[in-house]
Amino acid sequence: MEFSWPVRVYIEDTDAGGIVYYVNYLKFMERARTEFLRHLGHDHADMIEQGSMFVVHSLDAKYKAPARLDDQLRVSVAVQQLKAGSVVFLQRVFRQGDSKVLAESNIKVACVDTENMKPQAMPEEMKAALKNYFSD
Amino acid sequence: MEFSWPVRVYIEDTDAGGIVYYVNYLKFMERARTEFLRHLGHDHADMIEQGSMFVVHSLDAKYKAPARLDDQLRVSVAVQQLKAGSVVFLQRVFRQGDSKVLAESNIKVACVDTENMKPQAMPEEMKAALKNYFSD
Amino acid sequence: MEFSWPVRVYIEDTDAGGIVYYVNYLKFMERARTEFLRHLGHDHADMIEQGSMFVVHSLDAKYKAPARLDDQLRVSVAVQQLKAGSVVFLQRVFRQGDSKVLAESNIKVACVDTENMKPQAMPEEMKAALKNYFSD
Amino acid sequence: MEFSWPVRVYIEDTDAGGIVYYVNYLKFMERARTEFLRHLGHDHADMIEQGSMFVVHSLDAKYKAPARLDDQLRVSVAVQQLKAGSVVFLQRVFRQGDSKVLAESNIKVACVDTENMKPQAMPEEMKAALKNYFSD
Repeated sequence: MEFSWPVRVYIEDTDAGGIVYYVNYLKFMERARTEFLRHLGHDHADMIEQGSMFVVHSLDAKYKAPARLDDQLRVSVAVQQLKAGSVVFLQRVFRQGDSKVLAESNIKVACVDTENMKPQAMPEEMKAALKNYFSD
Repeated sequence: MEFSWPVRVYIEDTDAGGIVYYVNYLKFMERARTEFLRHLGHDHADMIEQGSMFVVHSLDAKYKAPARLDDQLRVSVAVQQLKAGSVVFLQRVFRQGDSKVLAESNIKVACVDTENMKPQAMPEEMKAALKNYFSD
Repeated sequence: MEFSWPVRVYIEDTDAGGIVYYVNYLKFMERARTEFLRHLGHDHADMIEQGSMFVVHSLDAKYKAPARLDDQLRVSVAVQQLKAGSVVFLQRVFRQGDSKVLAESNIKVACVDTENMKPQAMPEEMKAALKNYFSD
Repeated sequence: MEFSWPVRVYIEDTDAGGIVYYVNYLKFMERARTEFLRHLGHDHADMIEQGSMFVVHSLDAKYKAPARLDDQLRVSVAVQQLKAGSVVFLQRVFRQGDSKVLAESNIKVACVDTENMKPQAMPEEMKAALKNYFSD
């Protein structure tokens, strides 16, 4: 399975090149990731209440084609790698109804204890839920 | 009539105070304004094709109560003042399902010629449509 | 007296119109305000240690002429109004070496208790220092 | 040789976690890269006049330790790889006066023709200048 989230391009997202500022795709991807986790029943407040949170450990990004003002984008989320305390998400940005990848990123997030920021295993049910979203 | 647009608060929108960074409400309001104009049939591309665009002339903002991470907000758009070449929008930010105003702004936008950036009358049909959205 | 802070325009600050995104002038102004308070001996950490912080209560902004990529700007800070628990700053954005105002804002910040966010008198020495920066 | 640029952390750069929002390090790095190229005599305007510009092709980023509000950072720029039409920059973020890396990124930028966005060799003198900044 794969999860997707719609993102509209507003002026705030563009730069003087007339296209989406490359840094902002990472914001779009985080919005999709956040909604994905919410969809699985784990929003930030929920996780924090249970004493854990995700932090971004590392990422890579490839920029293939530009998105523009007013574009309606679709940002996908899939699981690339799953360990006890970390997940690597594969995320892609498309124009709605088009299969051409505009930008792509692998983002490794680690589960940490909110008190001391030390690595922590993620909740079992979250891990079980994430298993359904492995990328092919 | 009034137009409203939903905005979710993501980490990108917050600051070290744990709340939405006050500058970002203006981005939320622009998203709502953009969707409002799109709803009326005038997205950016459309207007630019006709040789005109809106630029922000001035604004004020009042901050009344903070929005927080994961909040689902509702951003309203109404017309405060309408002239041949400019509109003052009244925009308010609420938490979804709540009538308490978190932030409020009057934003004056002016219609300009895309070639020379000189003031220009806005399209008649846009003006007619905007008349239906006067704030009470 | 007046305090000024240099700000360079980078791609992150621009929008598809090829100019500085109007919302971002407020960030430039906050940088200048922050450096002004640091110059007076009150950075955020300092104030918070003493149990108080400034929050933005309201603002207005006028946009007069656009700044562009690579521009070297100068952002001024002066005091417009000074009360026990609040200050109105007058801030202006210029191109370095030019007296033409590109954007201008009056920004009211209120001193609050960091614990309960209730209004609080600002430190006496800060108030005394601010008096030297009244705008003419 | 290595080039460094100072960056101060303002409220706009932080998130609800009380630290610099991870996406924003990429903005800090671009500021340093831009100043580096300006230092070599090639600002954006200059390059565009000559019909070429740099676009970000891909990047990776590793987050090692958080920067906080009011921190004075130092962002370094070195050349990792140099080809006719592209450069990979190695960039690191430190706290001023400290050698501990907070964040690190390899960023590949490609030189393109401003007209058709097709790959282009970069100016010879720029390439010659970049050779002096190879990372060890």
